[in-house]
Amino acid sequence: MGKNREVEVCFSPAIYASYENKDAIVVVTDILRASSAIVTAFMNGVERLIPVGTLEEAKAYKQKGYMVAAERDGIVRDFADFGNSPYNFSKERVHGNEIVYSTTNGTHAIHLASSGHEVLIGAYLNLTALAEYVVVSDRDLLILCAGWKNKFNLEDSLFAGALAQLVLRNHGFTTICDSTKGAMDLYNVAKQDMMTYIDNVAQRHRLKKNGLDDVIEYCHEIDRTKLIPVFRDGAITLINDSL
Amino acid sequence: MGKNREVEVCFSPAIYASYENKDAIVVVTDILRASSAIVTAFMNGVERLIPVGTLEEAKAYKQKGYMVAAERDGIVRDFADFGNSPYNFSKERVHGNEIVYSTTNGTHAIHLASSGHEVLIGAYLNLTALAEYVVVSDRDLLILCAGWKNKFNLEDSLFAGALAQLVLRNHGFTTICDSTKGAMDLYNVAKQDMMTYIDNVAQRHRLKKNGLDDVIEYCHEIDRTKLIPVFRDGAITLINDSL
Repeated sequence: MGKNREVEVCFSPAIYASYENKDAIVVVTDILRASSAIVTAFMNGVERLIPVGTLEEAKAYKQKGYMVAAERDGIVRDFADFGNSPYNFSKERVHGNEIVYSTTNGTHAIHLASSGHEVLIGAYLNLTALAEYVVVSDRDLLILCAGWKNKFNLEDSLFAGALAQLVLRNHGFTTICDSTKGAMDLYNVAKQDMMTYIDNVAQRHRLKKNGLDDVIEYCHEIDRTKLIPVFRDGAITLINDSL
Repeated sequence: MGKNREVEVCFSPAIYASYENKDAIVVVTDILRASSAIVTAFMNGVERLIPVGTLEEAKAYKQKGYMVAAERDGIVRDFADFGNSPYNFSKERVHGNEIVYSTTNGTHAIHLASSGHEVLIGAYLNLTALAEYVVVSDRDLLILCAGWKNKFNLEDSLFAGALAQLVLRNHGFTTICDSTKGAMDLYNVAKQDMMTYIDNVAQRHRLKKNGLDDVIEYCHEIDRTKLIPVFRDGAITLINDSL
């Protein structure tokens, strides 16, 4: 048996440098709503997603004829085809297509994570598939929460706790990371009544103000798919498209 | 009645820019061990503490004849008179003295916080006194956790939850801050058996490795004093030295 594999959680892209681990599988999460939307896009047959950091890049792709999903602070941008809601990534729109994607926090986190061994996109929708993939790999796990404009957010941290806990049940995984322990404790408090808990998080209030909170329950549904999106060479594809 | 006053918690100095609030009272905490040591120093009659960021500055003060407390990663530095343990700041050593102080995380956080309206040093030792001072002020409260080398740490976050919860019981205070809610939930999990909980945090293992964990229980004793150290004009003195 090899050495113990470490599970760590990073609560904000702004402190990623302190957690960076080139040998780890990095799972990026932005539960409300980017990573939930990305997983949904693959459930509906999207071919490739190209995450871009700035609206200028997104606009340039649009002018080249790409389909573009782009929002800031939850609001779809004029030039874009649609915004960040998982409901926007319907089968009719995305099946077989290549889509450029830019969001407030999610795409930045994905690019940041790419110094890791492999970058996976994580959501409740594909929770157990992620855990199983990590367990059969011979790698550390680092979970990067997209947060909100560099702040800690609860919904990403709870998901990190859920994933960490699943992985840590397996022989050979350990953690000495305070944020991992904190995330698991918070998840175990919240899961007793997740929708009531989420009703109080800051992002729920932001989404509600713009009438965008209809997706919250969907974004907390566990194991709707075994698909795992992976970020490689500038684009997101499926790691396991035979499933 | 005026507007609601906001309570926020910042889990790491590296994300402080996202939480900065010039109108707020900022409480800086570094439970294991800097802020507990600072409060202890005042309980034992220190006159003034001068927090300095670098070991070079601390050494320069030493050469000018100052008494110096300085450590890195828990280890007292050769040139210093003593290190970071609250037990070092005994009455015999500190009473009536002016002491220069440099630590791994705490002094950096104190300097960072000085863009706020007022910077207080917070620990369990003076918990209720802090809450009472904040409540009678007409200010927001921002709690800055010193963390560990920009990482989230549990012991500071738990203290932040304890203080936030005390203040939020009072009319006129509110929070929409996810880290405040998370910190309170973690504190309510941990407080059921604080010493067992703390036994698992990363800093406890670091201290134990160097035989420095004898202070952990003391650093979690609540309300040993009403004294509140305040950072003003480059030095820490008492805000309320008549008490």
